[in-house]
Amino acid sequence: MVIELNFASDNASGAAPRVLDALVAANSGYAMPYGADEWTRAAEIVLCKLFERECAVFLVPTGTAANALALSAICPPWGAVLGHSEAHVMDSEAGAPEFFTLGARLVRVGGINGRIQPKALRETLKAYPRGVAKQVQASALTISQASESGTVYRAPAIAELADIAHSAGLQVHMDGARIANAVAKLKVPIADITWRAGVDVLSFGGTKNGAPMCEAVVFFDNALAENFLIRRKRGGHTVSKARFLGAQMSAYLQDGYWLELARHANAMAAKLARGLRQVPGVRLPWPVDVNEVFAVLPARADAALKSAGAAYYSWPVKGLSVADRPRKGETFVRLVTSFATRPEDVAAFIEIAGGR
Amino acid sequence: MVIELNFASDNASGAAPRVLDALVAANSGYAMPYGADEWTRAAEIVLCKLFERECAVFLVPTGTAANALALSAICPPWGAVLGHSEAHVMDSEAGAPEFFTLGARLVRVGGINGRIQPKALRETLKAYPRGVAKQVQASALTISQASESGTVYRAPAIAELADIAHSAGLQVHMDGARIANAVAKLKVPIADITWRAGVDVLSFGGTKNGAPMCEAVVFFDNALAENFLIRRKRGGHTVSKARFLGAQMSAYLQDGYWLELARHANAMAAKLARGLRQVPGVRLPWPVDVNEVFAVLPARADAALKSAGAAYYSWPVKGLSVADRPRKGETFVRLVTSFATRPEDVAAFIEIAGGR
Amino acid sequence: MVIELNFASDNASGAAPRVLDALVAANSGYAMPYGADEWTRAAEIVLCKLFERECAVFLVPTGTAANALALSAICPPWGAVLGHSEAHVMDSEAGAPEFFTLGARLVRVGGINGRIQPKALRETLKAYPRGVAKQVQASALTISQASESGTVYRAPAIAELADIAHSAGLQVHMDGARIANAVAKLKVPIADITWRAGVDVLSFGGTKNGAPMCEAVVFFDNALAENFLIRRKRGGHTVSKARFLGAQMSAYLQDGYWLELARHANAMAAKLARGLRQVPGVRLPWPVDVNEVFAVLPARADAALKSAGAAYYSWPVKGLSVADRPRKGETFVRLVTSFATRPEDVAAFIEIAGGR
Amino acid sequence: MVIELNFASDNASGAAPRVLDALVAANSGYAMPYGADEWTRAAEIVLCKLFERECAVFLVPTGTAANALALSAICPPWGAVLGHSEAHVMDSEAGAPEFFTLGARLVRVGGINGRIQPKALRETLKAYPRGVAKQVQASALTISQASESGTVYRAPAIAELADIAHSAGLQVHMDGARIANAVAKLKVPIADITWRAGVDVLSFGGTKNGAPMCEAVVFFDNALAENFLIRRKRGGHTVSKARFLGAQMSAYLQDGYWLELARHANAMAAKLARGLRQVPGVRLPWPVDVNEVFAVLPARADAALKSAGAAYYSWPVKGLSVADRPRKGETFVRLVTSFATRPEDVAAFIEIAGGR
Repeated sequence: MVIELNFASDNASGAAPRVLDALVAANSGYAMPYGADEWTRAAEIVLCKLFERECAVFLVPTGTAANALALSAICPPWGAVLGHSEAHVMDSEAGAPEFFTLGARLVRVGGINGRIQPKALRETLKAYPRGVAKQVQASALTISQASESGTVYRAPAIAELADIAHSAGLQVHMDGARIANAVAKLKVPIADITWRAGVDVLSFGGTKNGAPMCEAVVFFDNALAENFLIRRKRGGHTVSKARFLGAQMSAYLQDGYWLELARHANAMAAKLARGLRQVPGVRLPWPVDVNEVFAVLPARADAALKSAGAAYYSWPVKGLSVADRPRKGETFVRLVTSFATRPEDVAAFIEIAGGR
Repeated sequence: MVIELNFASDNASGAAPRVLDALVAANSGYAMPYGADEWTRAAEIVLCKLFERECAVFLVPTGTAANALALSAICPPWGAVLGHSEAHVMDSEAGAPEFFTLGARLVRVGGINGRIQPKALRETLKAYPRGVAKQVQASALTISQASESGTVYRAPAIAELADIAHSAGLQVHMDGARIANAVAKLKVPIADITWRAGVDVLSFGGTKNGAPMCEAVVFFDNALAENFLIRRKRGGHTVSKARFLGAQMSAYLQDGYWLELARHANAMAAKLARGLRQVPGVRLPWPVDVNEVFAVLPARADAALKSAGAAYYSWPVKGLSVADRPRKGETFVRLVTSFATRPEDVAAFIEIAGGR
Repeated sequence: MVIELNFASDNASGAAPRVLDALVAANSGYAMPYGADEWTRAAEIVLCKLFERECAVFLVPTGTAANALALSAICPPWGAVLGHSEAHVMDSEAGAPEFFTLGARLVRVGGINGRIQPKALRETLKAYPRGVAKQVQASALTISQASESGTVYRAPAIAELADIAHSAGLQVHMDGARIANAVAKLKVPIADITWRAGVDVLSFGGTKNGAPMCEAVVFFDNALAENFLIRRKRGGHTVSKARFLGAQMSAYLQDGYWLELARHANAMAAKLARGLRQVPGVRLPWPVDVNEVFAVLPARADAALKSAGAAYYSWPVKGLSVADRPRKGETFVRLVTSFATRPEDVAAFIEIAGGR
Repeated sequence: MVIELNFASDNASGAAPRVLDALVAANSGYAMPYGADEWTRAAEIVLCKLFERECAVFLVPTGTAANALALSAICPPWGAVLGHSEAHVMDSEAGAPEFFTLGARLVRVGGINGRIQPKALRETLKAYPRGVAKQVQASALTISQASESGTVYRAPAIAELADIAHSAGLQVHMDGARIANAVAKLKVPIADITWRAGVDVLSFGGTKNGAPMCEAVVFFDNALAENFLIRRKRGGHTVSKARFLGAQMSAYLQDGYWLELARHANAMAAKLARGLRQVPGVRLPWPVDVNEVFAVLPARADAALKSAGAAYYSWPVKGLSVADRPRKGETFVRLVTSFATRPEDVAAFIEIAGGR
């Protein structure tokens, strides 16, 4: 067995076998293009069943598209999207939300461990009072579940944020690129942390957790989806051979496969966290709720891992409290596990970090 | 053998076997995301080789994305994109060019058989003189090869249009969603009908001719590609598990597979055209150069085909000369063949149309 | 008396005396900025009275702003604005409608003498069926009153076009840059050719007819104006010392001054047309309804006028029927009169053109 | 003499007499529209002379237009504009910079007293490294002179910020809505605090300091102005009867009138500040460099002024250090003087605030 030390991203993994098998199996005969096929319809049905209600479902090939398109449906060009300072939409999507909303503003809200604090949300809303024509209009709140810091919100926390947002006239988006990992952690029905908690539109991720390339935008209010077909087409995200998206999503969800994959990824991260906490000089500033471990590494460990070929990214320190920030010689890194991470790889990583 | 009468679209076909096999084979181990993988690199290399020169290559999941992103690189928000009245960008992409260019104007240029006439191009350019600040600025010419009417341009025709465009300060885009079919027809090196004829940026199609979902934007002038990475990311078209795009493109091009697929599609269309021309009351207004047959069907043939379950689209008549337009009871339809079309299917279609 | 041969544009005239006097008189003490002043309020009241109903009124400094902002309120980014091929928004506003709508498409509708033909409108609408997600959505009709060819629509003609538009789900804008001239010609209440005929939002021009710089956007449906304050501010068209706009508009409308100015301009054009029709070799292709005369001039007349220092623009011939187009040596020109044009100037122009 | 207690805004004042007189005097005969007139040309010449060099000058009717258009010329849609947290572009222009740049991001930089701190600028730039395709690209720095807190930058401070910006590949805009007041305070040639200090494009304000409505965008690098004519037209800011802008700007600058007006406004603010500092319970958190006084008022003073009919705005406290923030019962207000403010008005205001 070749040890693989790739903890750079869940996107560095390939496809989960049953999802890829389904994509291959969909290559059978003719199918009407642009979403008028049976695989797409099946994916819509399975998503509605998962959410225990009717939803308006749209498949797209990337997570950036899902987020930006969803936000464009709830935020006008003169609006503002409020989200956590460290959220993926803020610094990792090249301004896609601004592009798809045609000029809305992203406004950063604070909060420790990657989670928006209700108090910070209230104060930000005060700075953007609705109806003042000289200012952009606060229109959307985006919540990342799991957060960009690898933590999760429990249902009541989401409901509290959504209530604040709705009371101020905003609508609520959830970036669920890692929602499978969050559900696997929280062990609650996905409805409880989405529409039952006040989420209006969800980016339901598939790719990071095992699909080759497939995400869904799920609206819990049909009125919001009114122009979405044309928005998606105009954005170039209406895939012609759409069966190849539908097949991915259906297989991903069938028989709880998505949660099985996520539970494994989470377990690998938990194992990695446990091991790293034993390594002298390593600090983990944030709770490890899902499949990401954020760690301050001493120089020695970082060097040993790098020379062993380990892959991971150093991470911006601005999300850290001052006390947690790396000191001289230390590095702050993100380590991501996935459905493909093996226990042996984790063990090897810990050993090398520990200098053994 | 079950006869399949689906001539609705080349997108109604699935994936060509060797392309799908390559996608599956790419599911091996870890690969850095967002295009920093070996499959993407291989696709870039094979495309440069195909074009006999250095190019800046960017893979995207859809043809609409390829066209709109390419146009945004050569047309400012206050620019105009000139294209044939019947071109795909005009009425089949939901305004994606306007969206990605952030407000440019599409200007329709005339020409029979789906091909822009040099004279019409010159007259249109006169109506949009550069430097007149009260008008949008003619900035890009887009040429469809093959055209939306299933015809092709020979190299000198492209060069003539490109010369006119360049002389007026425009840059030249080619929509090559069906460029494989055009090359298969023309039997010339692809360089001859692209950069050697004056094309500055090409949408190189893969999906219609056998890829599950993969297109390439190919720049023949690196300066035009300067901001393309961020444009693509901002548009949500930078695929995270990019290996699955790269693998498609490499396999598609390897050992001339793309031309093999296109030759078959073209041959099926030629066979279909030959057959239909023998059917009393059927008229084919345009030459059949590639894998599309446009036909005026008598009511009887249309009804027989429909009741036999044949799938095809009726088509706008505005591209037809007045003499060619359908008379009472007739229908104007588009019939598309693909790598997957079988001679038996074509024969059956002709038989049913012929009332046998 | 110095003869002035400036027929280049109504914008070449300065300000009508009573409008300028009012602007000067408004320079008295303090006034709250951005429209919260008594002059702006007075203008709103006088406009509502003129239209015999409640309206939502917004003053802006330019006609391009009025048109583009108004269209942005009734056409989404993925929409299409249908207007006459020769309309001002098409070729004289540098794509401002595309900019303010954030990417909508302008679609040219035909019709002789600058007026949209109902039949042409119906055919254009067929080419843009609502709800087809691969196409931009026909959303707004814009009617120019007076038209760009100096002709007017009677109330029933407007109502017919508006009915067709409304039935297809579009809303109706009127470009009233020269609406004063149209009302002076038609001698009907302005309500009859605007909201009573189905117009939803009007650009009410002031500048061409005597204001230094002042136009109004007038909504006849408050719901359409919902976000207009922020749209105007975001476009930089919310003037800080707004009293100087309000004062212009109030004085312009007081005691029928606007119609007095327009009647004079129209009369001067009528006189000019009468005179030119007597000049051998001069042809006037279009009716002269308001303050614009379009004329084909023989080379000799054109040369004589130019050498006498006359100012006017040659005009695109594409709006002309083939029979009317200038032949070799002839020039097609636009001659515009205004409140400032004097009978002596018109007489001199005719004399020079006639070679006397 | 009626005492006027209006300190709400410099925009609440009307027009300075010599500027208004010139506007009236321009109403003479015909003038070619859209800027091809002698008044516009004269304004261009006088501005070039003022700046001791060739400049590309464009007149526009509002300050928001000047800022947003200028920024659009130096920041692409995927760019970021860095500016002080309290700058006018951030919260008082309804997202006009986002609209004109077609989607760029505004990024807030810290600094006390309304001035950007070099250290804060450097740190912000680190968070937006150029060339990282997953992030928006830091492209423009905007400096407000005078600042939104009524303070000024000395020439070396501007040069330091401009150097940092240029080194990182950004271009530098100055919002000079109150640059007259800054020059009056600093007593240096305007060239020293603009292009000689590294400013690439300036919004040169006229309106707040006495013009009815006139601002200039001044480029110190012609290449940046390349597309500005069409940008301005497309934004609806190319005034047709442009003579009325040109006349304002020329008169405003003639014989140092603009500085005379600004010196008076500054002197009135200084007098107001001196007086208020004597009032028990009043605190002035920021230096009073120009024509704005920011004051924490005790409840009693605020009530007395309000009941005497004084007009002024309460102001957001987020720009204040924690120590300076108003305590229970206190109000934080902005008081603005102008060319029209009289010593008697200031004296009366102070007396009422002091409870006499």
